[in-house]
Order: sequence, then C-alpha cells, then structure tokens
Amino acid sequence: MARSTSLPPPVDLSHHFSSTTKRREASSIKELYKYFFIPGIANVAGGMPNPSYFPFDTLEATAAHPHRFQPSDASSKPEDIHATDRLTIPKESQTTNLQKKIDLATALQYSTAEGLPPMAAFVRQFTRQHLHPNIPYASGPDTLLTCGSTDGFCKAIEAFTNIWDPDRDWTSQREGILCEEFVYMNSIATAQPRGVNIVPIAMDAQGMRASGEGGLADVLENWDFRRGRRPHLMYTITIGQNPTGGTLSVPRRKDIYALCQKYDIIIIEDDPYWNLQFPSAMELEAQYRGTSVAAATTSPAKKRNYNAHGKSSGYEFLDSLVPSYLSVDSDGRVVRLDTFSKTIAPGCRLGWVTAQPAVIERLARITETSTQAPSGFVQAMVADLILGQQVDENPNSSVHRKKKPAADQGWQMDGWVRWLGGLRGGYERRMQDMCNVLEEGKYIIDLPDVDIAEEDAQESAWEVIDKRQMYDFSWPTGGMFVWVKICLESHPLYSRYPSDRLSKALWVQLTMAPYLCLLGPGTMFAPTKSVVGRALPYYRLCFAAMPEEEVTGITQRMVEGSRAFWQRKNLDGLEDQGTDSFQALKGQQSGNMLGMGC
Amino acid sequence: MARSTSLPPPVDLSHHFSSTTKRREASSIKELYKYFFIPGIANVAGGMPNPSYFPFDTLEATAAHPHRFQPSDASSKPEDIHATDRLTIPKESQTTNLQKKIDLATALQYSTAEGLPPMAAFVRQFTRQHLHPNIPYASGPDTLLTCGSTDGFCKAIEAFTNIWDPDRDWTSQREGILCEEFVYMNSIATAQPRGVNIVPIAMDAQGMRASGEGGLADVLENWDFRRGRRPHLMYTITIGQNPTGGTLSVPRRKDIYALCQKYDIIIIEDDPYWNLQFPSAMELEAQYRGTSVAAATTSPAKKRNYNAHGKSSGYEFLDSLVPSYLSVDSDGRVVRLDTFSKTIAPGCRLGWVTAQPAVIERLARITETSTQAPSGFVQAMVADLILGQQVDENPNSSVHRKKKPAADQGWQMDGWVRWLGGLRGGYERRMQDMCNVLEEGKYIIDLPDVDIAEEDAQESAWEVIDKRQMYDFSWPTGGMFVWVKICLESHPLYSRYPSDRLSKALWVQLTMAPYLCLLGPGTMFAPTKSVVGRALPYYRLCFAAMPEEEVTGITQRMVEGSRAFWQRKNLDGLEDQGTDSFQALKGQQSGNMLGMGC
Repeated sequence: MARSTSLPPPVDLSHHFSSTTKRREASSIKELYKYFFIPGIANVAGGMPNPSYFPFDTLEATAAHPHRFQPSDASSKPEDIHATDRLTIPKESQTTNLQKKIDLATALQYSTAEGLPPMAAFVRQFTRQHLHPNIPYASGPDTLLTCGSTDGFCKAIEAFTNIWDPDRDWTSQREGILCEEFVYMNSIATAQPRGVNIVPIAMDAQGMRASGEGGLADVLENWDFRRGRRPHLMYTITIGQNPTGGTLSVPRRKDIYALCQKYDIIIIEDDPYWNLQFPSAMELEAQYRGTSVAAATTSPAKKRNYNAHGKSSGYEFLDSLVPSYLSVDSDGRVVRLDTFSKTIAPGCRLGWVTAQPAVIERLARITETSTQAPSGFVQAMVADLILGQQVDENPNSSVHRKKKPAADQGWQMDGWVRWLGGLRGGYERRMQDMCNVLEEGKYIIDLPDVDIAEEDAQESAWEVIDKRQMYDFSWPTGGMFVWVKICLESHPLYSRYPSDRLSKALWVQLTMAPYLCLLGPGTMFAPTKSVVGRALPYYRLCFAAMPEEEVTGITQRMVEGSRAFWQRKNLDGLEDQGTDSFQALKGQQSGNMLGMGC
Repeated sequence: MARSTSLPPPVDLSHHFSSTTKRREASSIKELYKYFFIPGIANVAGGMPNPSYFPFDTLEATAAHPHRFQPSDASSKPEDIHATDRLTIPKESQTTNLQKKIDLATALQYSTAEGLPPMAAFVRQFTRQHLHPNIPYASGPDTLLTCGSTDGFCKAIEAFTNIWDPDRDWTSQREGILCEEFVYMNSIATAQPRGVNIVPIAMDAQGMRASGEGGLADVLENWDFRRGRRPHLMYTITIGQNPTGGTLSVPRRKDIYALCQKYDIIIIEDDPYWNLQFPSAMELEAQYRGTSVAAATTSPAKKRNYNAHGKSSGYEFLDSLVPSYLSVDSDGRVVRLDTFSKTIAPGCRLGWVTAQPAVIERLARITETSTQAPSGFVQAMVADLILGQQVDENPNSSVHRKKKPAADQGWQMDGWVRWLGGLRGGYERRMQDMCNVLEEGKYIIDLPDVDIAEEDAQESAWEVIDKRQMYDFSWPTGGMFVWVKICLESHPLYSRYPSDRLSKALWVQLTMAPYLCLLGPGTMFAPTKSVVGRALPYYRLCFAAMPEEEVTGITQRMVEGSRAFWQRKNLDGLEDQGTDSFQALKGQQSGNMLGMGC
C-alpha cells in the first residue's frame, strides 16, 4: 500500500456535488498573482485595512511543554507539570518567507480560504506524511482548514446534499445520509433541516455493522425507494464512537468501504478522538470478566504497527493507532474531518478536512463565501505553539537552532506527537478509573425485603444470594465515553412501571444528593424516532471533563445511586420534577447546548 | 423616536424563512440548565475535554492605547503612538460571575452559539445603547456574534432564501435579491450559487436610488414575473459603499424603507465602514470645484446630531454619524451585519448580526450546526482589550478601580469609541491625500502632436490650449475607496480602439514601472452581465491599505501613468500580456482572493 506513482488517481465524484456546489465559480485569479510580486507595486485594488491600525502589537502566551502529561505506557516520564514556554508573536516577523511567517501583520489581515500559510502547511504535512502515510490514490489528498469539525461537516453537507422540501419536491428526489444507530446528534441536526432521509445502521461494540439485520448491506440492498433515493452519503465516527466508545477494526472498514464502492457512497469520517485509542480496554475487560481477548481486531494491541506493510508514520505512537478510512480509500470517496478541539481546545474553532483535491477545491469555494478562514488569532497561536517563530536560515542547521532563543522554538512535529500521546495517557487513565468502578459495582445483591438492620445479620449468607446486574457496558476502546445499558428488566419494579418511566426515574435519582450526577440519556443519541425505543435504557457517561482524581469518586456516586434506585419500592418523588427536563434532553439541538462537544 | 413601551413589536416575518430554516428545531434544553447549577453536580453528560489539557496557561498581548491615533477634528490629541497596555488572560478568572469571566477555562471550552458571555454582552450593550439608541420597535433588537460579516451574510442568505435549481424547479419559484448596481462581489458570490436572481438597482453618488429609471420603485413596480418571484431580499452597503464610497442620506433611507414595507422586502444592511464617515469630503470637493455644498443630505456635516430628536448615543462622535437603516426600522425587517474587521483586524473573523429577536433566534440555530461560535482566542482577546479583567466587586466603585492593576483595565466603552474616532481620522486623512492629488491631476493639456522638445517653447501658450479631463470621481463620504470613472472618450485613441481595450490597456500601463499601481477594475464590481458594460470605465482605488505617508506619492504615480497613457500613439505592448490577467480579474470569486476584504 505504499504510495507510488503507479497508484491510480481518485475517481471523479463530481456527480455527487449539490446543484449549489456545482454552480460555484472557480477563481481564475491565480493568473493575477504575478502582479502582486512586481517589486514595488502598490496594491490599490485590495480593500484591506492598514496593519498599523490593528491594536495588538504582540500576542503572547505561556504554554505547556509537550511532555507535560504522562503517556499510557509510561515509557516517557512526564516533566514538571508547571514547566512552560513563552510564545511571542510579533507584529512583523523577521522572515520574508510567507510559508514561515507567523506574525500579526499577516495573521490578522485578510487571507485566502487556505488560511495562514504556516498553519495550513503544518496540517498538510502532518496529514500526508504522518497521520495517513498510506493513502492508496495517486498524489494523495489535499487539506483545508475549517472552523472545527462542525463547520467542516456543515460544508461537506452543503457540498454533497441538495435540499429537499416536501411541499415542492418529488419524493424520488429526496436524498439520504447513513449513520450509526446511536450518533452524535449535532451532526444529525446539521443534515436534518435539509430534508434528507436520516438512515440509521445497526451497530455492535465496534461500531457500524456491515452485515446482518439492519447492517449496511441489508439497508442498501433492501432500500425502499418509496422513501427517496438510496443514500449516497455516510456520516460515521469510527474511533471512540460518540456515544458508544467503539472502534472500527480494519477488516470491518474494508467491508464497509467495499459496500460504499458498490453503491457509490461518499464517506464523511468524523474523527475527533483518533489519538485517544485505549489498548488496555479489551485486556482489562477480559481480565475482569474472565474471557479471552478474542476480538483482537476491535482493540489496538500495544505496539501494533498498522503501517508495517507500508510507509511508517515515523512515530511508534501513530503507527500503533487504528488508521482512518483514508488508508483504504482507493477511490478518494472519503472526506475526513479533523479538529483541534480535543488536542488543543474546543474554543480554538480550528480543524481541517482531508479529501481528494477535487473535493477540497469545492470546499474552498464554499469557505470563501462563508467563514473565509479560521480566526487569525487561533491560527497564529497554534502555529506558533507547534512551529515556533521561524527565521530565514535553513531550519535543519544545528548552528541555526542554537542561535534561536530557547523560548520560542515551538513543539515541532516530535513534540506535537508527544503531546498527543500524553493526552491519550490522561484520558486512558480516566477511562480505566471509571470502568474499574463500574465493573466492580454492576451487581446488586438481591435483597428485596430485607431492611438495613437485618442486613448485617445476614452478611455470612450473602454469597449464596442471587446477584442482579444493574447495567452492562463495553470498555471503550477510544474516545471520551462509556455507553452504559441499564438492565431495567432486573429492577424489582420492572413489572410495575413501563421502561421509559423507570429509565427516566433513575436519571432523576442520580441528579439528586448525595449522588449528584448528570448523565447523558441515550435518547439524546437516537437519530430517528424508530431508534428512540432502543436508546431508552442507555446512558452516556463522559469521563473526560472531570479531574482525574475525581473520576473514581463520581463513578462511585453513580453506582451508589443505582443501588439505591434498585432498592426503591416506588418512583415517588422522581417523576414530577424530572419528566419535563428529561423530555427536554431529547431535543434535537440539545447536544451543543449541553456542552456535548463533538 | 425615543424607544418607549408604546412602540409596537416587530412584525412577523417568518414567512420569509427558507424551508430549511423553518425546519430547524428550537432547543428546549434551557429547562435543563437548573441541573447544571445544583451545587456539586458532576456533569457526566457533556462531552467536553478537561481544561487542564488546554496547552495554553495564559494568553497575553501588548495592545495600543485607545488614543493612539488622532481623530479627524484634532480636538483630542494623540498620545505617544508607542504607548501600550499589557493584557493577560488567565487560565481561571477570579470572578465567579459568568457574565464577567474572561479566562481560558471558559473561552477555550465549548460554548453555546451565543459565544463568550462578556463578549456577547459588550456587543449587545454597544449595539442597543450606543450605536442604535433609537430603534422604533418594542424591546429593541437582539444581537448574535458571527465569524465576521461574510459569515453573517452567509447565514442570513441561508435563513432567507430557498435554493433554486433550473433543472428541478419552476421559474415561478425562483427568488431574487436586490443590490446596488456596483457591489462587493463576494456577497454576490454567496447568493448566486443558490440560483437566486441577482437584481441590480441604479445608483447615484449616495448609493441606491429609490426613484427614477432603474431605481428601486421602477424595478419593483415593473417586475417581470417571467424571471421568477419579485425579490423579497435586499443586500446593501449604505455607508462608504463598496466600491463607490457613497453614503445614503436619511431621507433616501426613508424612501427605500417605505418601498421595502410596500413590497415586503427584508433589508440586509452590510455596514463595515459605519465609523469611517468623512464629513470633509463634500466640503473639499466643493472647494476644489467651486460648487456649493448643496447636497448636505449626502454629507454628514461636522457636529451633526442625528439623534437630536431621540435618545443620544452618549457620544458626540456616534451622534454625528449617519445612522443605520435600523433607525427607521419600525417593522423589524432590517438584518444588520457588523464586523470587527475594520475596527480591530480582519483576521479576527469576528462580527455580529443585529435584528429582531425572532430572526436572531433562527440565526442562532444555524450557528449551532455550522460555526458554533467564533474562536475563543479572538473572543477572549477582544473582550479583554475592551473590558479588561473584571472582578466581582461593584465595577462602578472608585475604590475598586484603584485596586485593579492599571495594566489590565481595558479600554472600556469610552476608550472603544475614542479608538473608532482615531481610525476615522487616519482613513479620512488618507482619503484627503488621495483625492487632493486626483483632483489636481485630472486634466491633461491637449498636445496631440507636440513632442517634448517643442513643449518648453510652447509653455506660454499652454493656458489657451484645451484641457482634456482624464477621469472623474466623487470624493467618498465614507469607507476605504475612491470610485474613479475614466473619461475614455477624451483619449486621443478613442476612435481607434474600442472602449474595453482602451480601459484594459490603461490598467496594464499603470502596473508597469515607473507607475507600479494595481487598480481594482470596475468590472470586478458588476453583479450581472448587464452591468459589465457600464462598469468598464470605472476603477476602484483603495487608500486604506497603504501607509499614510505614501498615499500622495502612489496617487501621483497613478496620475502620471494616466497622463503617459493619454500621450500614447497606440496600445503596443499593453495588450498581449495584460488581457488574460485582466480577464481573470473579472472572475466572480476574485474579490476575496485579491484580499479585497469587505
């Protein structure tokens, strides 16, 4: 799979572009660029303000060393957590090379849709050489900066779907988008108002299923054309899926990709958690449950090298990660969304799209008349954090390196990859802490009519009493979430209350003292009404936001709250105040309002 | 016109929303907010990263004092141009008040579409209390942050237009948008791919004409329904119009607004140059040309107070500016786009929309599934620049003020308005410098067959020789541009070459040494093919980007280049290399690629 000149070019997918996207006119202005570079030319044509009027003379920051956090494998010890570097972005950079210039006169001025050149160049280099070294089409993909993955998805949806209006259009014109049956709802809220069919596909612990009832092949083969056109688009999160935490194996990717080729489907791969893969999840789950780690394909084993038969990423950490759909994308039908939201900060509103050049070109046209480019403030800050202030001499010269002040050298590629590994370590430890407690607390001893006073007396008899399982879950192989299924049928009140009331009452009980936990109800992740029933017993637990030292305690509160709920004789006090709010949680737009992130 | 409770509410304009916009579901999550504020609640529902993983510990800046630049009236002397303040945005603010918190834990985290609370609150306060103190509908408008006006316009177009596809839809369904006949083309490039009719309206020196041939009343009354629906939308720049530099008087605004009421039209007012109004333009033009300043309505005279009959803005400078369409918007049919691009920097990608609350609510829904919010880096920086770091005590207490370190108090509202006046001063002086040179150089002595050697001998005879006018222009009453019309018919070669070749050849000649000026061809601002012919003799000159001390010299080069062009015997050497590039300039997308800005 090594990239070579003998690879075929990506296929022409322009028939998938929306009518609006087809009508966008390409800029032929590049011919004019030569005039810009006539020495001494005065650009009286532009409409730019004079940079002397930007009120910021410098932007500065105190930033972490890339070694601040300990990776999962502890092979690299963390530095002093308080060690910092100083960043200073000057008004005017010393370099004359536009590709290296990180300064305010450039970053705070108008730019093309391509963004700040050093930022765009870094993303391109990281994507093509390190993150996806083995993309099987000639010349590889292009990249385009976005204002985060929500923006990237919005632009992709604009590029690939025509709006369908039931009052105006024929059903046969209605387009559709495939997605996992449990899904990050803000993406659905992007697509749904356009009138497209939302088509959920059955999942297992890995993610989307290729075969079986409700799997991709089933849905596509048996498509009911009375609903509209067979979907030509797929939205998927394949690593640390939101909300289920699953990771799609490479064999599964190949199966799904083959179906997408057969039915000519564009895959929009939203991958915010690609560096948060947890090799320990399957092993620990197996240890607890006394099973063997059979499904090695669902778990990236330690030191696994997915690029062993192709070009290495150059980093052991990156080689060990389950790769993108891009790694099997011989047609160029994958549009991948990346974001700095989880690797730097959500407030960056900075990310990028990776796709074949003809797709990127259309997305650039869309960008010119919408966001234009990400904010120069974040572009300059992130570029400087990673690349540092660059000067004109050969950056590979060690003499040059020594001349540069130590404070502003930037993380460089090595530091960036080290930082990613440190984040993985932090989140993997949180995942382990939460799952340890959940694993140990999932059973309740069945004492339906025993009160507290009698409990002690019976202690010696406990081990022979039946256990009831309150919930079940898979240890997440990536991402930020544990997807817990409540075993409602094991609840003593199961026969007295319908499942929906029982599930909601548990949610309300957990918000109350002393449990004080706000869970994400599964219904929030149901893309269509047909899925709501199946989603009802599920809750999404996020271990990412809380401080590492609090994960165990908070999870214990959830377990204790569940145990208390299993001991209830009725739902009194849990229904009046709770129901309305729980209903509110099902609102389509709720994800972002709740700070759901991606 | 003072706002009072007796004002009627804005009218319901929901019939104008696109089918997509109507289908967006409102978030009902607000009912859930109460759970967020349960003391000690653990938010396990959200999907946010932990702020300890943001690699930035502080963001800092060196920023200008608000008095750095001298206003037009020189009543307030500039300070030392090098005087600066230090800004420091901490990881965690000392204040517990979310409305005052400017820190990285908040700004770099996920947020609602409303954005960083202090930033959003500042924009709302400035808009409602100072920029538009007299909006004639009950309770006044709402505001929503955008990623700049291009983003704001994109969202407004999404909200108010249905896409029309000639291969799928009836012509009777085709919508339309009205605009000035010469127009900022990036906005047209936003609307055009949606298949809407672009409908140019005739202009004069002020801007869009209400009456007369090709004026608004004419176009609407005589609308040809074979083209589609009568336009229900208008895009307009009314102050320092791009490209013409005109400013629409209040009486003209009232005439146009009445027509928009009659025909139920939404007005999208793009106003990036509202603080760059030049009271001196009409006076200096009149002095040069020996005419009287008759058209006072087109020029905001010094110390004019447009709010004299209503509530004052609180600032003499703001009271002196021609007000927005919002000031006559009794129906709530104005959607106004503001930007920090010209007041802070284009790279901010930060602006806001002002409109009636029901429109803002829909735009917030669109924002949630596209940009989510502007980048937290720029929001924090601009909020801190203006507001400073805030603490919990009463900010009106002088004791408190003294306790705050002097370095991070922020500009405050007074400083912000002072800064705006300083910018106006800088651009007004540039405008004067450019127009002085243009005014003095617009004639060439008619010496068709006199060579240089003979010139001196004839010097005494010059005054009786006919003058030819090479170009004409109006002094711009606002903005960043002079719109120059080339008097092609006065050129000695006018009968030998068609106008288009002559105009293009002049453009090429000006790019050559020693003139070295790149002008914006008028055809770049022609929204439809029907206008291209009329645009051909025009050039847009931008005085904003160049250093103040170079304006005179650069403009002199343009005048000398024109004079040289008028002395040519043929166009040899100007056509081969130039034509292709000139054609490229006419590309619809060219504006932004050229760094045209807004």
